[in-house]
Amino acid sequence: MLGARWVLRARWVLPAASLALGAGLGAALATRRGSQSDEAEGLLARLPVVPVVAAAGPPALPGSGRVELTKYGLPGLAQLRSRESYVLCYDPRSRSALWVVEQLNRETLSGTSDRGDCEFLEDDSVHEYHRATNADYRGSGFDRGHLAAAANHKWSQKAMRDTFYLSNIAPQDPHLNQHAWNNLEKYSRGLARSNKNVYVCTGPLYLPRMEADGKMYVKYQVIGKNNVAVPTHFFKVLILEKESGEIELRSYVMPNSPVDEKIPLERFLVPIESIERASGLLFVPNILKRTSNLKAITAGNKH
Amino acid sequence: MLGARWVLRARWVLPAASLALGAGLGAALATRRGSQSDEAEGLLARLPVVPVVAAAGPPALPGSGRVELTKYGLPGLAQLRSRESYVLCYDPRSRSALWVVEQLNRETLSGTSDRGDCEFLEDDSVHEYHRATNADYRGSGFDRGHLAAAANHKWSQKAMRDTFYLSNIAPQDPHLNQHAWNNLEKYSRGLARSNKNVYVCTGPLYLPRMEADGKMYVKYQVIGKNNVAVPTHFFKVLILEKESGEIELRSYVMPNSPVDEKIPLERFLVPIESIERASGLLFVPNILKRTSNLKAITAGNKH
Repeated sequence: MLGARWVLRARWVLPAASLALGAGLGAALATRRGSQSDEAEGLLARLPVVPVVAAAGPPALPGSGRVELTKYGLPGLAQLRSRESYVLCYDPRSRSALWVVEQLNRETLSGTSDRGDCEFLEDDSVHEYHRATNADYRGSGFDRGHLAAAANHKWSQKAMRDTFYLSNIAPQDPHLNQHAWNNLEKYSRGLARSNKNVYVCTGPLYLPRMEADGKMYVKYQVIGKNNVAVPTHFFKVLILEKESGEIELRSYVMPNSPVDEKIPLERFLVPIESIERASGLLFVPNILKRTSNLKAITAGNKH
Repeated sequence: MLGARWVLRARWVLPAASLALGAGLGAALATRRGSQSDEAEGLLARLPVVPVVAAAGPPALPGSGRVELTKYGLPGLAQLRSRESYVLCYDPRSRSALWVVEQLNRETLSGTSDRGDCEFLEDDSVHEYHRATNADYRGSGFDRGHLAAAANHKWSQKAMRDTFYLSNIAPQDPHLNQHAWNNLEKYSRGLARSNKNVYVCTGPLYLPRMEADGKMYVKYQVIGKNNVAVPTHFFKVLILEKESGEIELRSYVMPNSPVDEKIPLERFLVPIESIERASGLLFVPNILKRTSNLKAITAGNKH
């Protein structure tokens, strides 16, 4: 009863009968799913991951007296991935990351790692239903845009290679990717050379806008068979650790469309609160747990 | 540099200078944020919540050797809420839930709890940046649609009252809410009376569709000052525990628009895989950890 234009995709076009899991087929499917689960556990063992991801079974809900509620598991939780070069939170609905955090400093920027040795890889730690593939990008008109940038991780070939997982990638306008956004990445590396550390958090935004009917809508394209979401904008939050101990925050938003390189980067500075509201994320409360010596840079107060 | 039509909303229209946190103002803000954090901790103490929610500080990332990466925290994780009547995963970006799980049986359906004693409440366990308010719904043309239904929880006034938190609510077409969707909720209760238990998982969907340019887009309205997302569709997954021990799965999708009540509910049955792909959630792998005696009902194999 879905309108014909709405796509509720069941990509494995199974005959209806094959979804009626009798004991035999059910057992077969259980085995298949089981091996998938083993694979995930193998990966958990290989990668350092916080317990959140491992919460496949029902967690204890202290005090509720209703532990029964989660008898058949929780259908979805935060999907954290901790890799050599970044920590990432995956968004299975958009087939990309919610956010990616990196640490940049003189050490991570120096080295001989070679981009030519890297290739874009499906992230097989993500369930196949929710995973982007290279085929999704092919012919879409969008670049496979890095969230954690490859050139930030010259210190280790593995660290650089890890940035090529498609979970660290989002569909990005080619001009933006190769020019203004690339300049922002270079600028971040420059700051990492002149400071003690720069923590970089990058992610997609899906911003609403008013349409002719006076109502607000979020609208974004999805590409490929897996419906990979094309963000309307990208954010990059830079947390600068200065030699003096002061923490400085610079937060940028760029539209996912061609941006004239002549426009100074500081024109893309926005109040961190805007990113926090739009993304559903919080930065400042976490930072203030570590320091009271925080300075936020927005266009109006650069100097 | 955002196009004028894009809304990156900073609702507290602060003069730029007030975002430059000098030591004095920084400390003041730290106090304010601190009290907010205390409030959240107070709530964590009051509500039974799994550890995921409490992961405000940087988690240990065993083996990565890069614990520094999370020095300033993780900007966002799964926001679970466990209440008397449900377990819910909040989506701070859409200002509503990703999914809500309930357990229905003869006990939870019987009782004298009164809907008249309930009122819709802001969920103050959610950061104010990401929280829906009653004002957001006012004049929007949408009902405050329950995900976990109030009438499912006659057994306890508190359980019923908990369903009125706006985190368990999504903007829903009034006709759908009051007719076809209401019928689906009644039908679920009927199944709960004739089975041992029914686990109900309900949530929003944001489905893509093809536009005139031949490309696929996700488009949904957002309402109120907080941009509360209006789902294009809703799903309801029923996990039936039969007296025989068999587990039966029935999964439904309805569009968020008027639906003719004369259409039989079974016409809204969809393969669970479709919901799993579109929502970014997984149900079957969790269920198969508990049983191999699973039967899935779709329109084609009802009998």
